[in-house]
Amino acid sequence: MDSLIVIKIGGNVIDDPTALKRFLTVFAGLAGPKLLVHGGGKVATQVADKLGIETTMVEGRRITDQPMLDVVTMVYGGLVNKQIVAKLQALDINAIGLTGADAGTVLAKKRPVKDIDYGMVGDIEEVDSGQIQFFLRQSLTPVFAPITYSAAGDLLNTNADTMASAIAVDMVRHNTVTLIYCFEKKGVLKDPTDDNSVINELTPALYADYKAAGAINKGMIPKLDNAFKALENGVSKVIICHADELANAVNQGVGTTLKS
Amino acid sequence: MDSLIVIKIGGNVIDDPTALKRFLTVFAGLAGPKLLVHGGGKVATQVADKLGIETTMVEGRRITDQPMLDVVTMVYGGLVNKQIVAKLQALDINAIGLTGADAGTVLAKKRPVKDIDYGMVGDIEEVDSGQIQFFLRQSLTPVFAPITYSAAGDLLNTNADTMASAIAVDMVRHNTVTLIYCFEKKGVLKDPTDDNSVINELTPALYADYKAAGAINKGMIPKLDNAFKALENGVSKVIICHADELANAVNQGVGTTLKS
Repeated sequence: MDSLIVIKIGGNVIDDPTALKRFLTVFAGLAGPKLLVHGGGKVATQVADKLGIETTMVEGRRITDQPMLDVVTMVYGGLVNKQIVAKLQALDINAIGLTGADAGTVLAKKRPVKDIDYGMVGDIEEVDSGQIQFFLRQSLTPVFAPITYSAAGDLLNTNADTMASAIAVDMVRHNTVTLIYCFEKKGVLKDPTDDNSVINELTPALYADYKAAGAINKGMIPKLDNAFKALENGVSKVIICHADELANAVNQGVGTTLKS
Repeated sequence: MDSLIVIKIGGNVIDDPTALKRFLTVFAGLAGPKLLVHGGGKVATQVADKLGIETTMVEGRRITDQPMLDVVTMVYGGLVNKQIVAKLQALDINAIGLTGADAGTVLAKKRPVKDIDYGMVGDIEEVDSGQIQFFLRQSLTPVFAPITYSAAGDLLNTNADTMASAIAVDMVRHNTVTLIYCFEKKGVLKDPTDDNSVINELTPALYADYKAAGAINKGMIPKLDNAFKALENGVSKVIICHADELANAVNQGVGTTLKS
């Protein structure tokens, strides 16, 4: 099986043009088939503000009514996605920007209302990894915006970490998959206040301990849940690292590596 | 050679959700390989207004500074494109939304400044029809937003009529191509004030006469120049018709058919 690297790049890097350019240059230089999933960043909130649309976050997740869905579709699916694609083209990477709706790659279902009505938020139902594999075979590099679609033809806002995990898991049918979460920290930290307290290897047992001790904090928990889920479902390796250390993470195991 | 229908749908239909839904349903029902290029509509101007960005039009063309480029990238490349793609998916059409940057399909060059500085506007240099053909062979239906990219990695605003014509001309390498411009009139009119004065067949000689007589007006001239250019460059048939008459235009020659 061919190897495939699925990389998720977070909002803080998206918001910083210099950091983004640096990241994309390293990404472009990685050998072999690869795929990028990007988050949204603060631009969506800024655009929403200017358009007079209020942003409501619950546990780090955006409540997405129809006007907010339009904003994230514009900002994630349009502005951020296409800027990344054009920049990668200039770096000789034949990138193709996709939402889950494009070529039917990531189908979702509107999240049922329980305690919280998240609005137009999608829970992933099905990834068409055959279609994604077809792009990779054509030497295209898919760049996914965190937007999916329903069978009824609605667009749905979807968490980028979850989308990266779901795509990585389904690509296991075709590839030996490494999943890398790039963000603004050097890895998972033992002590959230100490940037150098990176945990080099994290097992489910250690994760449980750190959670119990409160060392692993709120925002990190859904990310790690997604990451361990990928590992349990056939992804060969999961790494969490700083965006600037992507190359070292791939080649030298810098950052936090998850072990089952 | 396989036949291919390249269809351009204009802004007035994009702005009207009911008309757009009607159009997409007919589009979805057309037999054989097809490809859609959409315009922008008034949403870009409305979003720009709300964001405090002034819209300047010169002879029907938008002056595109960097903030305006961000708006059209958001609105055309994000909102409009992805809404169309998701709606087509619900109509069982495996649509894939593209700007020219995606998969390197339509490369352009920033328009040189002569009398007017159009800003970040692209003149098309090269269409990768092989790449587009590859999508069509995979039973994908490309949906193009009127945005291209430069070799330097900049996105560029591009006229949708011109984009449809350039794509149609390059697809001639692979297909027998029909190009259809759908808009809010029943065709090219002898008398702009009489909606029923449709010219059924238009030759270059007749076009020159109508222009000289002032019957064919300003906005129509660049559209027809693009249309005749396509015909001169190997496109088999060019039709200009009302969006609601797409099926009749394809099957019964309703609208205006251009003849060389």
